[in-house]
Amino acid sequence: MADREGSQSQFSRRAVLGAAGAGIVVGGAVGAFGGYSASSDAAEGEVDRTVPFRGDRQAGIVTAAQDRLHFAAFDVITDSRDDLIDMLKKWTSAAERMTRGQETVEDGALGLGEYTPPADTGEALGLSPAHLTLTIGFGPGLFGPSASDPNRKDRFGIAGRKPAALADLPAFATEKIEPSRSYGDICIQACADDPQVAVHAIRNLARIGVGVVSVRWSQLGFGRTSATTRSQDTPRNMFGFKDGTANIRAEDTATLDKWVWVGDSDNPPAAQWMTGGTYLVARRIRMDIEPWDRANLQEQETIIGRTKGEGAPIGQDGEFDEPDFQITSSGAPLIAKTAHVRLAHPTANNGVEILRRGYNFTDGSDGFGHLDAGLFFIAFNRDSFKQFVPMQHQLSRKDAMTEYLIPNGSALFAIPPGLKDGEWWGQHLFS
Amino acid sequence: MADREGSQSQFSRRAVLGAAGAGIVVGGAVGAFGGYSASSDAAEGEVDRTVPFRGDRQAGIVTAAQDRLHFAAFDVITDSRDDLIDMLKKWTSAAERMTRGQETVEDGALGLGEYTPPADTGEALGLSPAHLTLTIGFGPGLFGPSASDPNRKDRFGIAGRKPAALADLPAFATEKIEPSRSYGDICIQACADDPQVAVHAIRNLARIGVGVVSVRWSQLGFGRTSATTRSQDTPRNMFGFKDGTANIRAEDTATLDKWVWVGDSDNPPAAQWMTGGTYLVARRIRMDIEPWDRANLQEQETIIGRTKGEGAPIGQDGEFDEPDFQITSSGAPLIAKTAHVRLAHPTANNGVEILRRGYNFTDGSDGFGHLDAGLFFIAFNRDSFKQFVPMQHQLSRKDAMTEYLIPNGSALFAIPPGLKDGEWWGQHLFS
Repeated sequence: MADREGSQSQFSRRAVLGAAGAGIVVGGAVGAFGGYSASSDAAEGEVDRTVPFRGDRQAGIVTAAQDRLHFAAFDVITDSRDDLIDMLKKWTSAAERMTRGQETVEDGALGLGEYTPPADTGEALGLSPAHLTLTIGFGPGLFGPSASDPNRKDRFGIAGRKPAALADLPAFATEKIEPSRSYGDICIQACADDPQVAVHAIRNLARIGVGVVSVRWSQLGFGRTSATTRSQDTPRNMFGFKDGTANIRAEDTATLDKWVWVGDSDNPPAAQWMTGGTYLVARRIRMDIEPWDRANLQEQETIIGRTKGEGAPIGQDGEFDEPDFQITSSGAPLIAKTAHVRLAHPTANNGVEILRRGYNFTDGSDGFGHLDAGLFFIAFNRDSFKQFVPMQHQLSRKDAMTEYLIPNGSALFAIPPGLKDGEWWGQHLFS
Repeated sequence: MADREGSQSQFSRRAVLGAAGAGIVVGGAVGAFGGYSASSDAAEGEVDRTVPFRGDRQAGIVTAAQDRLHFAAFDVITDSRDDLIDMLKKWTSAAERMTRGQETVEDGALGLGEYTPPADTGEALGLSPAHLTLTIGFGPGLFGPSASDPNRKDRFGIAGRKPAALADLPAFATEKIEPSRSYGDICIQACADDPQVAVHAIRNLARIGVGVVSVRWSQLGFGRTSATTRSQDTPRNMFGFKDGTANIRAEDTATLDKWVWVGDSDNPPAAQWMTGGTYLVARRIRMDIEPWDRANLQEQETIIGRTKGEGAPIGQDGEFDEPDFQITSSGAPLIAKTAHVRLAHPTANNGVEILRRGYNFTDGSDGFGHLDAGLFFIAFNRDSFKQFVPMQHQLSRKDAMTEYLIPNGSALFAIPPGLKDGEWWGQHLFS
């Protein structure tokens, strides 16, 4: 069977991408060039589709929002601190390689021997890095008791390192939280231009983690609902409206420092591992799209507080015009008291802002003749209990849009800062 | 509120795509040009991303397989033939417009008046046609009793027009069919480069059909597993192997005539509406990826009968080399008796071939710590009971791969031929 072995040993994801991809690593960034298989263009040329894995911040937060998402929350199923750390080291190496368009380990899909299970599952062979980012977060349950397991012990000796802002979200009005779609000890947010690349990444991390973690829930998102850089168009959510017009952008560094990145004064020394990090709020929000679609245009625009086409605040012309909440028409405010844009605006939230990075989803049908569609809301903020939580309390009680929303998944994760060369995910938490 | 009305009335999906998209309709084909929002390229230029809606065949069968899928099966919930026909006419018009990158009706997202619900849900505003194809099929339940409702009457007076090849699939070994993922009176296969465009299309057809149809099940596919033209690379399935190397291609017109397109001698006069059409088999196949990932490389390649990297038949060098089932090694066949490539090959199936057009899926987790991932198998054939069914009986009993597969959804639909100018979906069935 010489032929067989011969064809295997010369084959890897890197090799498929061409010799140019082999070994070119500059400043922790690049690595892989090659055709972009997700696109239907015959020849796009050699474009770098790699987002640097290491840096001051984790990628996938202010990175220009990729079009596709696979998000997974894991339960840690071992009590062994050593096993968990060992997995995190393996994850780091595999994640960094995958963001370069490489297999989890060199020649992992094929080259480790015929009698060994492949170390990479192979379905991304031949695909480009597709701007893959992998962002890790730690949930409250990793540190002890939490909503997912109120009786849990401090299995890994890190309870004292838990930041105050890492806690279960409170209950909000009108939500129907399902534990099987909520919580988790560790999260991985995989974003990419090509969903097969994002799915491959989560699957391979899950596989590396066998015996240490198990998938608690996972969510695919087919279309981004946020722009995170000034160069991106504002996309539309499943209500057909532009979403995130007033989002914080990567260029707003002062705003990011104020509202997204954890400062060194935010935590006592034991939780300084979070300095430069942020907190991720995930909310699976089923949208009641059929009643919404029966609402007339004026009602929809009144609920949102923006026009459907341009996305302009009611009473203004352009998407990026500032809403004027003072204008009245026949004595009533032109932007309704219950309009989403008013209630979510910093002026109604003591100046608070959050960075949104959500995705549209459709998960088959709901068994009652309707599509199970909605928004997988992701937001990053410096302290969810001073930002997302009060904002959401207000929205869940007053926002007219709430009538069409059924939040059924909820989670909060601490997102540590980025990794320096040689560091591994969670290193500053565990050492 | 003059500003508000003004900004609405000048806005439509077409307008977003630029003036070039307005009114350019040549031979039923084109219509919309514009930037390709699903791609991350800043400037791809003005590329036509429209697949002609009308023609001898429905689009979406031999059309170069787009990367993303949204497939929906509908139950017809009315007994009114007139209502059903009325909906099919509305569907046809909306479908043709959406494949051009237009809203379901002109200015439908915005222009019908403030006190009218928008006729288009709007989330595809600003997106290109993304090579959208919409393919309709009719299930056995539309004509009377079927697996989904054994007591059903011939509600629409078409029982006599049912072709013999349109019947429920038989039970196969090792499957676990769930009725909530199976059957259906009507199917729509939406394929596009951009999943938001495919989801938008299904959603809007479901909406137009309110009161006439309800969504029985729907399935998203994130990555194609088939090439349907010679210009396309062979993609990989969730086992990490290339899938569909030996698929029929659009260029194989003689093979298509023999094995895919229904001939006029296939049916009596009452079912001649199917001449030039085909039959779609849909199978949701959960893949047991964790045990698979624990199988060593040789075992995986033995089960498939091809190498994992190149995809060459065992004993050969190249993906497109013909498998040689006669070669032995130490007295045993080099390609195992139970190898998928052997058992699915025409030589093991009396020469039978089928056109495959499947998609990878991942639908969250299974509640037991694993991803719910697999293959949404779609195949087109001239007579499923002479092609897919005997092939599947053999595979389900002998194929070593079966150990890792759990088929849990199943459906068969009659796919009529394409539409001439002015015709509507189902016209030759209902008149």
